[in-house]
Amino acid sequence: MEFSSKLLQNAVNEVALLPGIGKRTALRLVLHLLKQPKEQTAILSEALTKMRNDIVYCQKCYNISDVAVCDICANPNRDTQLICVVEDVRDVLAIENTGIFKGIYHVLGGKISPIEGIGPGQLNITPLVNKVKNNEVTELIFALSSTMEGDTTNFYIYKQIKDCDIKVSTIARGISVGDELEYADEVTLGRSLMQRIPFENALKSM
Amino acid sequence: MEFSSKLLQNAVNEVALLPGIGKRTALRLVLHLLKQPKEQTAILSEALTKMRNDIVYCQKCYNISDVAVCDICANPNRDTQLICVVEDVRDVLAIENTGIFKGIYHVLGGKISPIEGIGPGQLNITPLVNKVKNNEVTELIFALSSTMEGDTTNFYIYKQIKDCDIKVSTIARGISVGDELEYADEVTLGRSLMQRIPFENALKSM
Ligand SMILES: [Zn+2]
Ligand SMILES: [Zn+2]
Repeated sequence: MEFSSKLLQNAVNEVALLPGIGKRTALRLVLHLLKQPKEQTAILSEALTKMRNDIVYCQKCYNISDVAVCDICANPNRDTQLICVVEDVRDVLAIENTGIFKGIYHVLGGKISPIEGIGPGQLNITPLVNKVKNNEVTELIFALSSTMEGDTTNFYIYKQIKDCDIKVSTIARGISVGDELEYADEVTLGRSLMQRIPFENALKSM
Repeated sequence: MEFSSKLLQNAVNEVALLPGIGKRTALRLVLHLLKQPKEQTAILSEALTKMRNDIVYCQKCYNISDVAVCDICANPNRDTQLICVVEDVRDVLAIENTGIFKGIYHVLGGKISPIEGIGPGQLNITPLVNKVKNNEVTELIFALSSTMEGDTTNFYIYKQIKDCDIKVSTIARGISVGDELEYADEVTLGRSLMQRIPFENALKSM
């Protein structure tokens, strides 16, 4: 695309660097900003810059935070001995939104993926293993995505802590609540059958 | 969504104000920026702010420009008497990309739409009519989208200049090059038949 304005071209090119945003969408977004008051662009730019420069990772759980220890870790009502291991901050948000979980998190920052060149050294695995070995944990819940990379990461961590006296669990996989059986994929349905639970337990969680 | 970081929350909220970007997409984009070097966010914010603050509208054609008169209007090789009337800068880009058009543009900034509360007074119509009345134009080409609003706008302008001694045309509507007839919509196919051109003319443009 040839633009009549280098300023426009430049803005579109930068926006189009964002994942999933093509040149055409970038142009639409930039033209939208042009139609809005200048303040909107100023506020957006300021919010992004401030976020990028000032955000820190919680020194306990590696969750995104505005302060050294995040709100979840700092909350005296949370059970700090119950740790849910997740890939990234989106998983924390998803689990927090259920309102069910009263422990804390450990954010790995990704999962082991030889294809993407991500090894265990690039993830926050060592501090998690140290927490377990220092007897700071009674139960570890793996809540990684159920892919080969997720399973590999779970197993890599498990190997290092399996001799410790803690409970290790993984979130249940199954048919989504409200979904029709016939539309479920075979693997999920299979796991759902294999990991069946006593009906009395299911009754409790209804 | 409840965030553990107000900085993150704020950035996501601002990005989600952009059209077609939901909260979930905004979060994905912001988390992407967090994984990139700080410079990328700084450059993006700077590009947006500079664009919004410094861009002007060409005083001749109302196209987006970095200077008072845009590159197209300032180009001595363009025929300034041949004016293509378009809705916005995206149409200028689309037509420029064909490499066919050697005239200049007149960007209306939208089309008359009673439903969206856009009247002729909010569009750059008067300066166009003045150009015609000042004998600065030999041909006007309407290239607005072929909707009721586009047709209304064309007709509104046409009424004011129809007594002037200029040629007024509109871009041809028809089946897209390479498209199968059977998949074309009826209106387009109908117009395509009614606006048929001598085969010799078609041969020339192949
Ligand atoms: Zn934390
Ligand atoms: Zn111009």
